Amino acid sequence: MCKIIADPLYKVIEVKEEFIPILDSWPIQRLRYVRQLSFANLVYPSANHTRFEHSLGVAYLASFVAKRLDLDENLFFLAGLLHDTGHGPFAHAFEEVAKCYSNYSHEEKALDWLKELEEKISALGYNIKEIYKEIVGEGTGIIASEIDVDRLDYLQRDSYYVGNASARASYWHLLYNTVLVNGRIAFKEKTVPTIETILVERATLYRTVYYHKTTLAAQSLFGTALSKLIELGYLITYLAKLTDYQLISLFEKEKIREWELLRERKLPKLVAVASIEDYEELKEKLGDKLKVKIYQWPLCILNKIRRRKKKQSILVINDSGELKDITYYSKIQEYRKYLETYKDKVWFFAFKS
Amino acid sequence: MCKIIADPLYKVIEVKEEFIPILDSWPIQRLRYVRQLSFANLVYPSANHTRFEHSLGVAYLASFVAKRLDLDENLFFLAGLLHDTGHGPFAHAFEEVAKCYSNYSHEEKALDWLKELEEKISALGYNIKEIYKEIVGEGTGIIASEIDVDRLDYLQRDSYYVGNASARASYWHLLYNTVLVNGRIAFKEKTVPTIETILVERATLYRTVYYHKTTLAAQSLFGTALSKLIELGYLITYLAKLTDYQLISLFEKEKIREWELLRERKLPKLVAVASIEDYEELKEKLGDKLKVKIYQWPLCILNKIRRRKKKQSILVINDSGELKDITYYSKIQEYRKYLETYKDKVWFFAFKS
Amino acid sequence: MCKIIADPLYKVIEVKEEFIPILDSWPIQRLRYVRQLSFANLVYPSANHTRFEHSLGVAYLASFVAKRLDLDENLFFLAGLLHDTGHGPFAHAFEEVAKCYSNYSHEEKALDWLKELEEKISALGYNIKEIYKEIVGEGTGIIASEIDVDRLDYLQRDSYYVGNASARASYWHLLYNTVLVNGRIAFKEKTVPTIETILVERATLYRTVYYHKTTLAAQSLFGTALSKLIELGYLITYLAKLTDYQLISLFEKEKIREWELLRERKLPKLVAVASIEDYEELKEKLGDKLKVKIYQWPLCILNKIRRRKKKQSILVINDSGELKDITYYSKIQEYRKYLETYKDKVWFFAFKS
Amino acid sequence: MCKIIADPLYKVIEVKEEFIPILDSWPIQRLRYVRQLSFANLVYPSANHTRFEHSLGVAYLASFVAKRLDLDENLFFLAGLLHDTGHGPFAHAFEEVAKCYSNYSHEEKALDWLKELEEKISALGYNIKEIYKEIVGEGTGIIASEIDVDRLDYLQRDSYYVGNASARASYWHLLYNTVLVNGRIAFKEKTVPTIETILVERATLYRTVYYHKTTLAAQSLFGTALSKLIELGYLITYLAKLTDYQLISLFEKEKIREWELLRERKLPKLVAVASIEDYEELKEKLGDKLKVKIYQWPLCILNKIRRRKKKQSILVINDSGELKDITYYSKIQEYRKYLETYKDKVWFFAFKS
Repeated sequence: MCKIIADPLYKVIEVKEEFIPILDSWPIQRLRYVRQLSFANLVYPSANHTRFEHSLGVAYLASFVAKRLDLDENLFFLAGLLHDTGHGPFAHAFEEVAKCYSNYSHEEKALDWLKELEEKISALGYNIKEIYKEIVGEGTGIIASEIDVDRLDYLQRDSYYVGNASARASYWHLLYNTVLVNGRIAFKEKTVPTIETILVERATLYRTVYYHKTTLAAQSLFGTALSKLIELGYLITYLAKLTDYQLISLFEKEKIREWELLRERKLPKLVAVASIEDYEELKEKLGDKLKVKIYQWPLCILNKIRRRKKKQSILVINDSGELKDITYYSKIQEYRKYLETYKDKVWFFAFKS
Repeated sequence: MCKIIADPLYKVIEVKEEFIPILDSWPIQRLRYVRQLSFANLVYPSANHTRFEHSLGVAYLASFVAKRLDLDENLFFLAGLLHDTGHGPFAHAFEEVAKCYSNYSHEEKALDWLKELEEKISALGYNIKEIYKEIVGEGTGIIASEIDVDRLDYLQRDSYYVGNASARASYWHLLYNTVLVNGRIAFKEKTVPTIETILVERATLYRTVYYHKTTLAAQSLFGTALSKLIELGYLITYLAKLTDYQLISLFEKEKIREWELLRERKLPKLVAVASIEDYEELKEKLGDKLKVKIYQWPLCILNKIRRRKKKQSILVINDSGELKDITYYSKIQEYRKYLETYKDKVWFFAFKS
Repeated sequence: MCKIIADPLYKVIEVKEEFIPILDSWPIQRLRYVRQLSFANLVYPSANHTRFEHSLGVAYLASFVAKRLDLDENLFFLAGLLHDTGHGPFAHAFEEVAKCYSNYSHEEKALDWLKELEEKISALGYNIKEIYKEIVGEGTGIIASEIDVDRLDYLQRDSYYVGNASARASYWHLLYNTVLVNGRIAFKEKTVPTIETILVERATLYRTVYYHKTTLAAQSLFGTALSKLIELGYLITYLAKLTDYQLISLFEKEKIREWELLRERKLPKLVAVASIEDYEELKEKLGDKLKVKIYQWPLCILNKIRRRKKKQSILVINDSGELKDITYYSKIQEYRKYLETYKDKVWFFAFKS
Repeated sequence: MCKIIADPLYKVIEVKEEFIPILDSWPIQRLRYVRQLSFANLVYPSANHTRFEHSLGVAYLASFVAKRLDLDENLFFLAGLLHDTGHGPFAHAFEEVAKCYSNYSHEEKALDWLKELEEKISALGYNIKEIYKEIVGEGTGIIASEIDVDRLDYLQRDSYYVGNASARASYWHLLYNTVLVNGRIAFKEKTVPTIETILVERATLYRTVYYHKTTLAAQSLFGTALSKLIELGYLITYLAKLTDYQLISLFEKEKIREWELLRERKLPKLVAVASIEDYEELKEKLGDKLKVKIYQWPLCILNKIRRRKKKQSILVINDSGELKDITYYSKIQEYRKYLETYKDKVWFFAFKS
């Protein structure tokens, strides 16, 4: 008996019987307790959705695309379902802090959880390596590339929860217009306007939600709180496996002041924004001038300097079957550089007296 | 400077500057940590919305109606914002258990929180009694009666989060067609079909969401877990002021088995449903037969026997200005008795070996 | 190459290549020019959707259900697509008038259009009789019974266009919980609350949209206008094959006053409502009293007296496989009689001096 | 008694009693018979909404903004309601053709309709000049500028009807963050990401809906059909006042072949796209090569060459009260040039043998 799960975007998501042991396992159930947007709900009170429903959504879209491309839909359902297991409590906010102390990445952490599920996965005839390959974007790119079902789900889902619109026909149109070329997903030329829109919408969500200055103010407190725990001796590998509420419980147990402020939405104000270049200088100057504790986000700039692994680029195929990079058809990749300047900034906050 | 808060139903809710100290106070901010539908998210994974956003919604609708009826819109904004402060962690699930041990009711508990805010409320020129009167349904009935803005908000909001539809023009049509008669809200005759629909939709939400057998299975574990805390000596008055996650932390600290099951979604199966009449007999019989622990919801039947305070009835006014009870125009109140049989049932659950 | 058509409810509807000749034929394309709700847009300005998009929706849902029930999904796609071809311009409003003069019914009229398509349908391996059987509700009941995909589509669609909500997860839940018993569709017991809600929502749409007094006022003018055309000698069989705009053009060509009023939304006011019993008496009395032309809807009461063909009842199957009528589980059929009193009424309108 | 009109985007729009004579007049009621997106419904079957509901939406938003900016909300309600009266049947498609023959523009045509309403407008204390000024963008820019409520309404509304999302909180956030500087609307700096998104979304709608090649194919037939009517001697000034269906009736009366093809969705295929530069050459070459009639859109390139009146630019005000053009804060205007290349193209279509 399959399970029919209600979903606000896709109405119902069907989970086949054989996947239920994995759905019911702790690595997946734990995601019910990891909110998708961490502290964005301090700006958008309705943004309380979880990684659990997002993972179901990604599983649903991934298997849909796989089926159309004559790939193994079950494999992609599994990979979609499992793709976010590696997230620590508060997801990206946690990762950003953890990276100041270790080589933590949520994609790699996912491997630990996959290993815990190895027996169940093998029972279904799959091995964790092929799943992991899709999760980290070394496979078809369906789940992890510049335009992937992970993004298609979270763009629609996050929009739904911040009050902006909902399920979009144009995204489905895009998914219907994909092909597989040399083992990688490619998009038909006519989808270029949709791809451009998706990338701009993504930048908008970053600027107005994920990097909203109030979200960042909250994260600056969170970062400090988490670093205090780490300095108290809690291991990142331990912390990374907790849920949102379990990490909060630790904060409360250890009476960490920053969490108490954060809980009551007593947030510091933005006092300055630095680029990587002027970061050190500005930080020093602010310290001298303000004479109060300065909180910053991100907690360290290591990650800014260290190059992120680049996502697979976007392939476009025209009616004659020629395959080209999106940059051939569109200036969007160039324009993105301008839109995504938040990537190279550091925000400073303080409680002004 | 007023605050403009995004909302998926009403798009934006404006909070006037003078209300911000109350909005920012702990009695209201705490509601960010009390989910609206407790354990229904174990059936509907997207139902993670909180009492905080619901309270903003009720404030918004209440002040809208008040303004149209030439009442003090600010008073009603405040009353709407504060109407749910009295809820314990997990709201109704908590209340149902607490009532087995004490005279706890969330409306009365709200009075405690109002007292904490008395100074701030006085500063705005209001006293807590007039606010409380609206909260407990002894005033106009705008916030608390059979058809009130509390219900209009949660019906739309809960529907939005379980994947069924969203903001409805017909509800606004209803709100535009209200009058005030002898200090109480009344509805124009032409709204009768909408009122009937609202009451049926409410019963549907009860039967398919709030009283879904899986929701109740979870609540049966929760009830036992909570009762164990109480038996360990934790005071209900103390527990009632916690957030969802703080209560969970206590469960984890005290290693309460039922919570650990619940967390991992290991839920007992429905084994029987009793009416109040055959409750005792059935319970005994089940115990003999199953030889495993039986969980039940509600935890005790005291509340079923004890009569609930009846809500103010629904007044309808026709074009000639005659005021009559809804029962004059509609058989819906009669039909409801049939639809709402869940009110008088007890559900038994067990982990079958 | 299949066609991917955007749809606000289901996001995209896929039409297989082999169906395109039928999709592109006039019997189907004509439905682009027959609005779904005729004159309801004079009350709800956004209700301008057409029978064409509804027919695609019904085809989509019908083939979905058929596939799940191991029936021939293509047959049901065709039957859904074709089910409304028999509608005259302004659909039900036309039918109601035509019935005063002849035995016209849109289901039977559909047969004419099916015959025009016979060759194309045969080419796909189907015959028009098996399609017609599903359209008139003598088959499985998937497309035509008390709870059918026709209703599921128009309830959602009409709601979407009058400003009330949209696509519902609960309807999909219902469709996932169907079985085929002795060649007829049956619903699992757990769907009873959804079925009850659907029937009440339907009655609400009737009362607030389709039978809104302003919609009926418009229809009373339309009925008179159409009857004038018929009296001028235009054959019903001819008129029935026109589009909305072609009928309007005839009205304008023949300078029919009632259409000119209707076009400018100069509508008569409601002066009385009769039951079938007091219809004759009231009509006479009004004529004497008002001394202006009285418009009525429906145009004649023949159809009220003549019994409509009853739709197939709703079958419910429980976990033990027992099949019972919905009346065993629910009082909704009884309650409907009360809600659907509009069925037996006649409305009188006049331009008051 | 005000009128409460249901709307899918804003739920209800209130029309004050004094505006009802204008709402009920033919210049406004006529817009019920002018579809918003002309032939886009041949690609998006659900895009059947009308200029009437759009005009109500613009009136609603315009008066909302005016009220916040301490302007006369009634004046802006009227201007919003009347802003599209000048549109001929099939709106922009008509205008594009009419411009090949005359100096027709829908904004100027609106003046004719305003004059017909002069008495009614004067009765409300307004004169048509001040209304016209807002309609043509010589006033505050609330209704007509690069970011105006006309666009905010149609972007949301057209999206709603093509299956992409719906009412957006971010647009309301924008409207709450406007100021009036020297009589013109300006936007606070924090709204820049929203403005950028709006302009990209608009370009996406142009490319995927308004300028979809199938929409244009239909328009190429329409353009030829309309030009045939004009050549038969029908005056543009006469045609411009018709409704969609009245123009169609003329096509049918005059048996214009292109309309008959269009009605049955028998559309020519795209054979080439020209820029203004290579237009003449390409056209000639195609004629030689294809030996069938070539349809093109737009019908003439005069309008492409003739410069459109530029819309007022977008003003942004920062926290220090400095007013700057959007180009100071954003590269979007530059990027638009790239996105909006459709402006300078001509499409050729033919029925291939």
